[in-house]
Amino acid sequence: MQSSLESAKAALRSQPFSMLLNAEITSFQPSSVELRLPVTNRVKQQHGFVHGGVISYAADNALTFAGGAALGPAVVTSEFKINYLRPAKGEELVARASVIHAGIRQAVCQCQVFVVSDGEEVLCAVAQGTIASLGQPK
Amino acid sequence: MQSSLESAKAALRSQPFSMLLNAEITSFQPSSVELRLPVTNRVKQQHGFVHGGVISYAADNALTFAGGAALGPAVVTSEFKINYLRPAKGEELVARASVIHAGIRQAVCQCQVFVVSDGEEVLCAVAQGTIASLGQPK
Amino acid sequence: MQSSLESAKAALRSQPFSMLLNAEITSFQPSSVELRLPVTNRVKQQHGFVHGGVISYAADNALTFAGGAALGPAVVTSEFKINYLRPAKGEELVARASVIHAGIRQAVCQCQVFVVSDGEEVLCAVAQGTIASLGQPK
Amino acid sequence: MQSSLESAKAALRSQPFSMLLNAEITSFQPSSVELRLPVTNRVKQQHGFVHGGVISYAADNALTFAGGAALGPAVVTSEFKINYLRPAKGEELVARASVIHAGIRQAVCQCQVFVVSDGEEVLCAVAQGTIASLGQPK
Repeated sequence: MQSSLESAKAALRSQPFSMLLNAEITSFQPSSVELRLPVTNRVKQQHGFVHGGVISYAADNALTFAGGAALGPAVVTSEFKINYLRPAKGEELVARASVIHAGIRQAVCQCQVFVVSDGEEVLCAVAQGTIASLGQPK
Repeated sequence: MQSSLESAKAALRSQPFSMLLNAEITSFQPSSVELRLPVTNRVKQQHGFVHGGVISYAADNALTFAGGAALGPAVVTSEFKINYLRPAKGEELVARASVIHAGIRQAVCQCQVFVVSDGEEVLCAVAQGTIASLGQPK
Repeated sequence: MQSSLESAKAALRSQPFSMLLNAEITSFQPSSVELRLPVTNRVKQQHGFVHGGVISYAADNALTFAGGAALGPAVVTSEFKINYLRPAKGEELVARASVIHAGIRQAVCQCQVFVVSDGEEVLCAVAQGTIASLGQPK
Repeated sequence: MQSSLESAKAALRSQPFSMLLNAEITSFQPSSVELRLPVTNRVKQQHGFVHGGVISYAADNALTFAGGAALGPAVVTSEFKINYLRPAKGEELVARASVIHAGIRQAVCQCQVFVVSDGEEVLCAVAQGTIASLGQPK
């Protein structure tokens, strides 16, 4: 996690799994972030919808970066919870996470995951979790 | 989700994302399942640990198959929660999910995710969630 | 759960535990509700803060009523998750829940719990959960 | 939270809300605890079942004490998630929590809540959460 969009983008690019999914950080503000990834065939499950595991990846990672925006770059997701709302069918996933409360050691964040379908965003999951600082507070 | 190991394996193989991760169902009992996937470089984050999104995928999918063992093949994960316990470093992920309670419409399941390191299983995450039946009860 | 503020108030009053806590439904809209309860000594823990169990009661019940606003009166909370943000010290708890997504059988809702301290609302917990319909859709 | 059954009992007795519910710590081991409370009319909801808020109180508090067994007396529950499995009807609630993993700053615990009905324990909820140390590690 980093203190600017460019360094956040670089941090994501250093994660092989995020690169496998072609994920990208597209906004990085002090208390909110946006992560996007294209919906290709290989992120789907057997019925043509985005696999739940990909949606949970997007939520998890957006939550982590949001926590990093608040706590500094050395953070991990301690835990999160996700509710899937609808099957996700479309061209792109957009995960937007925001910081609800940040202390010194941890931040509680929430995330909405949308699928972009015919250019329109449809909410497909909501998540809530705790991001922990690994080291010195920012 | 299917009523036998072979059909469960086939269901997983029909998920492009599970194939991308080389995941496999290795046990499928009436109230518990096991899913495994190899830890290769591309499932890692920037520090060489398994990416949290991969661990959450494994938990999510094992929970879904456990629910399917109880409710029949047409199921989805409604929601789950995961706590990460330790950084996961090793050769293989093993997710074991079991059915805590099953009704007609939904099942509550729990999952433990281990990383196999030097041949030894180390618990790296625990999850709990709800699997919903999409159709007719089994 | 009921379709009007008066019937929601009556439903809450029929719960002995809610009466023990002097809880009250103070707003009941189609997709949001508000529940309040006074902070007296007996809802506290040993350090003078509101007991976490009381905060989780407020979140749980507000979530249930929000789900009831969407699904009709016969509902139960299937599951929820809560993050405590700060110790709650003050005169009153206010739980506001809103419906994020409602289908026929279930609704996903989120809740914020505030403590009113010197007349000011301080966010002390956030929750997210699933409310299930027990019977006929509304 | 305390390092012995007697001090754990005393800690619970110092919580006015736990006394309101007549809760009691009945076992306190290094990695598991048991909390019990009688099912009287005033802990019920409108249909004669134990109110969900009371079940979540029992889970929350048992999780906290389990975390305290691992981390020392100064702990709080950071977050937890609960799935309700069945309506709880009976004479007594029994919440058993155990430590899944404990570090220096926090512990992840799980809890099962039973209702004792005609002398038999029926599982009515499962919970999972994080307990944080407030101070010096034990």
